[in-house]
Amino acid sequence: MKTLNIGLFGCGTVGSGVYAILASQRERIAAETGTWLNTAKVCVLHPLKERNVAVPPELMTIGGDEILDDPAIDVVVELIGGEQEALGIISRALVNGRQVVTANKLVIARHLPLLRKLEDRHGGRLFYGASVCGSIPILKVIDETLLTDRIIRLRGVMNGSTNFILSRLAEGSTKEQALASAARQGFLEADPTADLSGADAAHKLSILAFHAFGRHVPPEHIATTGIDAVTAATVKEARARGCTIKLVAEAAEIDGELILSVGPHMIPLHDPLASVQDEVNIVEVECSGIGVQRFIGKGAGSIPTANAVVSDLLDIVARRRYRRGGEAAACIPAKSPADYRPSPRHGMTATVAA
Amino acid sequence: MKTLNIGLFGCGTVGSGVYAILASQRERIAAETGTWLNTAKVCVLHPLKERNVAVPPELMTIGGDEILDDPAIDVVVELIGGEQEALGIISRALVNGRQVVTANKLVIARHLPLLRKLEDRHGGRLFYGASVCGSIPILKVIDETLLTDRIIRLRGVMNGSTNFILSRLAEGSTKEQALASAARQGFLEADPTADLSGADAAHKLSILAFHAFGRHVPPEHIATTGIDAVTAATVKEARARGCTIKLVAEAAEIDGELILSVGPHMIPLHDPLASVQDEVNIVEVECSGIGVQRFIGKGAGSIPTANAVVSDLLDIVARRRYRRGGEAAACIPAKSPADYRPSPRHGMTATVAA
Repeated sequence: MKTLNIGLFGCGTVGSGVYAILASQRERIAAETGTWLNTAKVCVLHPLKERNVAVPPELMTIGGDEILDDPAIDVVVELIGGEQEALGIISRALVNGRQVVTANKLVIARHLPLLRKLEDRHGGRLFYGASVCGSIPILKVIDETLLTDRIIRLRGVMNGSTNFILSRLAEGSTKEQALASAARQGFLEADPTADLSGADAAHKLSILAFHAFGRHVPPEHIATTGIDAVTAATVKEARARGCTIKLVAEAAEIDGELILSVGPHMIPLHDPLASVQDEVNIVEVECSGIGVQRFIGKGAGSIPTANAVVSDLLDIVARRRYRRGGEAAACIPAKSPADYRPSPRHGMTATVAA
Repeated sequence: MKTLNIGLFGCGTVGSGVYAILASQRERIAAETGTWLNTAKVCVLHPLKERNVAVPPELMTIGGDEILDDPAIDVVVELIGGEQEALGIISRALVNGRQVVTANKLVIARHLPLLRKLEDRHGGRLFYGASVCGSIPILKVIDETLLTDRIIRLRGVMNGSTNFILSRLAEGSTKEQALASAARQGFLEADPTADLSGADAAHKLSILAFHAFGRHVPPEHIATTGIDAVTAATVKEARARGCTIKLVAEAAEIDGELILSVGPHMIPLHDPLASVQDEVNIVEVECSGIGVQRFIGKGAGSIPTANAVVSDLLDIVARRRYRRGGEAAACIPAKSPADYRPSPRHGMTATVAA
């Protein structure tokens, strides 16, 4: 039996989910794959804090170097969030030739070209399936689709907080009630700016577009509008026209130009994008050969996100890696924000005026 | 550069799609995977028949033995349909230790336990992604999901012919008009019995349930009702209650019992099952951890089905295979048809009285 020693950074919502899934599935995974997924160390800021999972104290550490400098650790799992410290952990691990799994969409969306260079230079491998739409295995699907078909367009609802608020508005709540309800039910971060401004969706879109179109568009270059201007009245007006409002992230190649945008759209009720509520995400992939495919599942929450992290660990066991297409390797630098405009080809949807 | 020599049986709707995708994608696939997918021989009944694709005459043969007995052929692709002859081709190829790809849902649904034995005994590998829901990579998703979660229930709309007819009825056509329109647009086989009776959906459900629950229920043991009793009036009545009629295939484990059924259900319009039209399929997978996931895409047609065949060829190149779970290997024999009854736990749907 082979052993894969895992060093976990962070034991919050996602980290404790990963710990719990590994604890309950370890034996089944070993029976199926011949590899024992061993949680070797867990690095946290506050080892004594009460958690959802009972991590043995001897596994706990507050020193990241204990994981990063330990040659016995095979895989570093980064689940602390934020940007600079997480980027430091991921890049140090890659420079050491380690395999790395992260759920950090901000770091991946901003720094993927750099991190791919570190992979190629030092032989490590980086996995980030949990950074986009939680339990939906969308990056793998896109990578495999590209060997047999061409992707024309991507479209989706990818942010749980705004979708929860828009779902409440559609049910008749005021904006204030919707925000309060989101906060109460854990759908709002302490600082909700990244969600409400559309930035979180832009991070996910940047990562998806990198895989689908082989070009890196930094999230700050994506034309992004949040849901600030959307009120109960906006949603009511949309409803009167047989529509609802969703925060739509969209990427399309038009005349060779890659156009990325995030913003509130009016979506007809019969459109599958209208059917996803709360933390459920949908991603539509339009291909020239097989047409439109849609993938729907929980995009947030402890277990759905942790499940994606464990799936990445299983890809490491199976020696998979993300596709290295000619285009993808090129990482064509993005143009300035002014050059990106919302897509003009929404047959059935229209951007809501801010 | 490695070469994978492919012997193709059948060059009809799906076979010509496979030939066309390989012709256009061969170089990209070689650049990405290092393997040249070579169409070495094509076995057809009528070599001189006009086809959508220009197969060089020297590749054509009418002798199946030329493929099955040629040690240079690495992969046998069976796309002739039907049962006995196709089963003969697949099992002979497996006994010769070959790798086999098929889109034949009838053969797989009925004979999977036997074919798995032939694989295990002779070292061949069998792939049948194209037999269930065309372009949707649902078998892979289920196999991977089972390593990290438990599937409680599967539900879906999986037959294009009946869904096309039900879509027309929902638009106000009479049953006769709907049937005529389906025939005109190629949505009806010369003998439409397998589609209209629900048998085609039962074949797909049997294969899905084998992967999801590790037990083989032969399709003839699945409680199956077709759309014979569904008329324009039925659909109109459903519409008056805010519903539509869909032919739903469903598998669930209830109290340790595996319950499989196919039949017309009344589905509320806001249910994602109601949103799929014509040849679009939907599969819902409910897991205990990550909740409900939905996969939507074209389940029929030349390119969507051929795309799934080529994806299987790429899995052969990547040395993947289907999961061999402890349960799956057991192949618990199914009970008699009388022991299977339609699922009682449709919170939102009701079986239409025949």
